Amino acid sequence: MSVTPLNPNWEVELREGFSRQSVMSLFAARLGRLAPGEAEILLPFRDDLCQQNGLIHAGVITAIADSACGAAAWSLMPAGSNVMSIEFKINLVAPAAGDEFAARARVVRAGKTITTCAADVVAMRAGTEVLVATMLGTMMRRASAAW
Amino acid sequence: MSVTPLNPNWEVELREGFSRQSVMSLFAARLGRLAPGEAEILLPFRDDLCQQNGLIHAGVITAIADSACGAAAWSLMPAGSNVMSIEFKINLVAPAAGDEFAARARVVRAGKTITTCAADVVAMRAGTEVLVATMLGTMMRRASAAW
Amino acid sequence: MSVTPLNPNWEVELREGFSRQSVMSLFAARLGRLAPGEAEILLPFRDDLCQQNGLIHAGVITAIADSACGAAAWSLMPAGSNVMSIEFKINLVAPAAGDEFAARARVVRAGKTITTCAADVVAMRAGTEVLVATMLGTMMRRASAAW
Amino acid sequence: MSVTPLNPNWEVELREGFSRQSVMSLFAARLGRLAPGEAEILLPFRDDLCQQNGLIHAGVITAIADSACGAAAWSLMPAGSNVMSIEFKINLVAPAAGDEFAARARVVRAGKTITTCAADVVAMRAGTEVLVATMLGTMMRRASAAW
Repeated sequence: MSVTPLNPNWEVELREGFSRQSVMSLFAARLGRLAPGEAEILLPFRDDLCQQNGLIHAGVITAIADSACGAAAWSLMPAGSNVMSIEFKINLVAPAAGDEFAARARVVRAGKTITTCAADVVAMRAGTEVLVATMLGTMMRRASAAW
Repeated sequence: MSVTPLNPNWEVELREGFSRQSVMSLFAARLGRLAPGEAEILLPFRDDLCQQNGLIHAGVITAIADSACGAAAWSLMPAGSNVMSIEFKINLVAPAAGDEFAARARVVRAGKTITTCAADVVAMRAGTEVLVATMLGTMMRRASAAW
Repeated sequence: MSVTPLNPNWEVELREGFSRQSVMSLFAARLGRLAPGEAEILLPFRDDLCQQNGLIHAGVITAIADSACGAAAWSLMPAGSNVMSIEFKINLVAPAAGDEFAARARVVRAGKTITTCAADVVAMRAGTEVLVATMLGTMMRRASAAW
Repeated sequence: MSVTPLNPNWEVELREGFSRQSVMSLFAARLGRLAPGEAEILLPFRDDLCQQNGLIHAGVITAIADSACGAAAWSLMPAGSNVMSIEFKINLVAPAAGDEFAARARVVRAGKTITTCAADVVAMRAGTEVLVATMLGTMMRRASAAW
């Protein structure tokens, strides 16, 4: 996409908003590449983020994909907007094993109120990337003072 | 539902498997009421599980709903089964504010390989329950030594 | 639910709007039981609504479930509203074989703009009902002159 | 994708199976471009496939997207396989207005039993294509004599 964001200060505000997502700090997740309509969140593997079999829990994979979708959607909204997830669906297509994970979201269609987003989550394993999950979700804009 | 579980030791094994879900310990989530084809997970509010606005992050709500669905599905499977989430969809219908949250899952239909589950997540607020999310998901059975 | 509809003329208008859904006429689908926040659509089996194996096509099952969700959502909206489906997800839990099918939708939560709905589709087989599909979807209100 | 199909006769059998989907004939839908792991279905606009406002009904859009996903998944399965839709989710991102519609599906990941597929549906309007819907779904393989 080659889009002009409506909020010229979007990246600064997005980073500030992300820093206030306490669960992302708990997970040691951080923002990766950002562009208008696109956002990446990186998550290192950690033993305390797992399900019973030593793989990252689907809820954690979902959390970074959802935050990435919210960030991608928000990046195209006018200043003073708030974004909330209405719903999302995620397919877990391969075991979430790896050293690090990247959730990469993109806006599929940005409407005035409703923005549809998609995200892929890949695992880094020995230098290669493996798709582990894919999300399709719906974000909603609300007029508000802060992300 | 009034179903006879195929694995007579299901509850002991389910509790043991849940205790090995490290992210549930990280969240201080615990099992609530269990019955064949049904499972509840309880999560106290905590400041470090939030998004930028002080509400519990959708990924955390999703995590307890997904684990509850997996437990509900697993409770009806024969001994030696493993359960994995193929996919799920969740609608976030109200702000995740409250003192405690309960994810309550039930089996919609149990097949030999595929089990469809639904879960509601309620927030406890000043003694009343408010629905905050509802999930519909697909679980798969795999022959295996452990949950 | 025991809710008072905002539009006192909702049932007359809903039936009129349904009668203009041309694909429902093509399918010979008709409205069943209606109540505020609830709607049923009935569909007789027909050979020309099938997939390659003689079962009703998932798209047809989805069509009656979606129209039922739209009707359930619309029944609680103020006069002059239009309803559109933002998205839905459906699990097809058993083969769509039977003499007749009923899609029964209910409002899970009605917001000012967004309404979350659920629907079950059952097949009538030799006098008994079998669940064949379950839907979870998101409807949106738009101010408008007609359904 | 550049994949070698397991069934060398896949295209002939897929066309034959599609011709037995009676609801596709009812809709006058036809197969478009086919490749291993990809399938397109084309649908001309018709007045009797609509909802109350003259747009193609979401269930009809879903039907062609689902059939395209099934065909894409099936194209990579071994000879003698049957494909069934376990579930799908679709976002309706723009009004389904146009002269013709194309549902284009691709395999996201093909497993031994479970195949994840995605599909976009575009509307042709005055020579340009507009995205109207996007689907993410789960298909299952069953050993069987025929599609």
